[in-house]
Amino acid sequence: MGPQLNVAVVGATGAVGREFLRLFELRKFPVGTLRLLASARSAGKTQKFGDRQVVVEELTASSFNGIDVAFFSAGASRSREFVPAALKAGAWVIDNSSAFRMDADVPLVIPEVNLDAVKPGQRLIANPNCSAMILLVAVNPLRKLGKISRLIVSTYQSASGGGAAMMEELESQTQTVLNGLPADPKVLPHQYAFNVFSHNTKVNEHGYNEEEWKVIEESRKILSMPDLPINVTCIRVPVLRAHSETVTVEFEGAAPSEEAVREAMRAAPGVRLVDDRAANHFPMPIEASGQDDVLVGRIRRDVSHPSAISMFISGDQLLKGAALNAVQIAEQLVIPAMATARS
Amino acid sequence: MGPQLNVAVVGATGAVGREFLRLFELRKFPVGTLRLLASARSAGKTQKFGDRQVVVEELTASSFNGIDVAFFSAGASRSREFVPAALKAGAWVIDNSSAFRMDADVPLVIPEVNLDAVKPGQRLIANPNCSAMILLVAVNPLRKLGKISRLIVSTYQSASGGGAAMMEELESQTQTVLNGLPADPKVLPHQYAFNVFSHNTKVNEHGYNEEEWKVIEESRKILSMPDLPINVTCIRVPVLRAHSETVTVEFEGAAPSEEAVREAMRAAPGVRLVDDRAANHFPMPIEASGQDDVLVGRIRRDVSHPSAISMFISGDQLLKGAALNAVQIAEQLVIPAMATARS
Repeated sequence: MGPQLNVAVVGATGAVGREFLRLFELRKFPVGTLRLLASARSAGKTQKFGDRQVVVEELTASSFNGIDVAFFSAGASRSREFVPAALKAGAWVIDNSSAFRMDADVPLVIPEVNLDAVKPGQRLIANPNCSAMILLVAVNPLRKLGKISRLIVSTYQSASGGGAAMMEELESQTQTVLNGLPADPKVLPHQYAFNVFSHNTKVNEHGYNEEEWKVIEESRKILSMPDLPINVTCIRVPVLRAHSETVTVEFEGAAPSEEAVREAMRAAPGVRLVDDRAANHFPMPIEASGQDDVLVGRIRRDVSHPSAISMFISGDQLLKGAALNAVQIAEQLVIPAMATARS
Repeated sequence: MGPQLNVAVVGATGAVGREFLRLFELRKFPVGTLRLLASARSAGKTQKFGDRQVVVEELTASSFNGIDVAFFSAGASRSREFVPAALKAGAWVIDNSSAFRMDADVPLVIPEVNLDAVKPGQRLIANPNCSAMILLVAVNPLRKLGKISRLIVSTYQSASGGGAAMMEELESQTQTVLNGLPADPKVLPHQYAFNVFSHNTKVNEHGYNEEEWKVIEESRKILSMPDLPINVTCIRVPVLRAHSETVTVEFEGAAPSEEAVREAMRAAPGVRLVDDRAANHFPMPIEASGQDDVLVGRIRRDVSHPSAISMFISGDQLLKGAALNAVQIAEQLVIPAMATARS
């Protein structure tokens, strides 16, 4: 048996935080001490972890003494404030926020794609944006089949991307609307029940919102293709917890055949092919929810381009889009490093 | 005052049929005799039209005696069976089904785009597919700004495209799921509540489903661009009655500026520009519902292509996507023709 790790979860009471605890149990992550950290408002609550009842503590700069690995999922400003303290205390940090993702000296990692981006001595690893992550798990297997020259993406993003409060708003507001009453949105700027809208983040000078710009910049960094042309439109849909995306991939040379793409998807880690034309069964967020794999289907040649393929994908935003990827990074980097350090 | 027209509505009890009656009143369409036709199952029901209570009659080959204009919206097989009888009886026919849309001698018309496709003597006019219609109302104004070389579209399609039964299924199933019970889909093959899925039509040998193929073929015919490359993925979302689409338009030469596109949209008939970046206010299906105009926004240069623009659009599937376009065709073609004939 390997070493036990002292683990901190920052943002332990959020939608992603709860997934961390579930995944630690499910995957038998070697949790020694478990410190659950949140805002003062949540301090004193208890959360169950296996046989333990763990009391949530207020996040402070001294929260990380004795911690081996800290998972941050409490937003970019919390990360900017407290990640330095965690690193100073000697912990590895896996940060699910956008705070450090584009820093040149912080690796941005999807284990299936670019684990080799982590250099010796680096102990802060950034966990990518959920839409970029789900996209790249499905796009990466295509790199063996040709040189990708452009990505064109439209997203169908779920409530979980906005956390537990947004999921709750979708459910309660949908009931309100079904009762014939006005939607009365609070978390989001627009009615969410039976509606879709452009992702509610600031639009930059190029006309792209923050979510879209993250997909563009982070995808380029993760793929080590700093100039890869990417077109993306991010749209919220009234779905609870998995993101879906239409994806067109243009190639520099000839496009791979549909069957070559299917074969690559069957062989790809983290991907499940769901592409049954006869049964009209393709990726759906309700089937991706709770699943580790990104579902990939509707694979076909793009009839509008000499060398492109199109597909439709769904992936659980809270799992591969957030908590699962962070835990996989810890499993594949931190556990082996700790074992070496202690041997 | 112009002449009164004797009008038949085939599929009078459906979601589109009901919109016809509402539009006739709202737009003061000169309805003389009104014959409401449906299947035997609906015959004998009454529907209100202004002060009149009109009894629904069973559709038969002799239903069109004395009718000046017949609006068909009861599916392709009904149209194939009964449109010949209506034409034989001397009526103009505006057919909302797919039955005749791709016939070389049947004009497929969006009045804002190609009213000139109707040649003297033609009395059968096909009403385009809703997704193609909403797309082209927004794309047509761009043709003044450059030569379009490719369209890339992802749809966010509402329940109304499947008629009243699908709208009812979405509402009742959503309540079922909120109550914690299994979805139990009947009209659709998949759970619709809090889910999205690939359009539930047959996938052809190219890997495109029927809805996608209609968008491709009908758009080419309407634009008189028989080789225009079009990439489209059609996805259903849990929205009641307006379709939305992400649209990227590539140009052969330089792309127009964002401001030129906005100016073209402001000037375009049937379009309303909704493009407020500061307020994060863009087209949404709940705001398109019940509106005649197609809403257009999120206009920006495509950063992944040297000469393309992207946008997001929403249009009411039952209005511009179906009944409104058919009524506009009648207003602009049939009423003037009848006035001439009777003068």
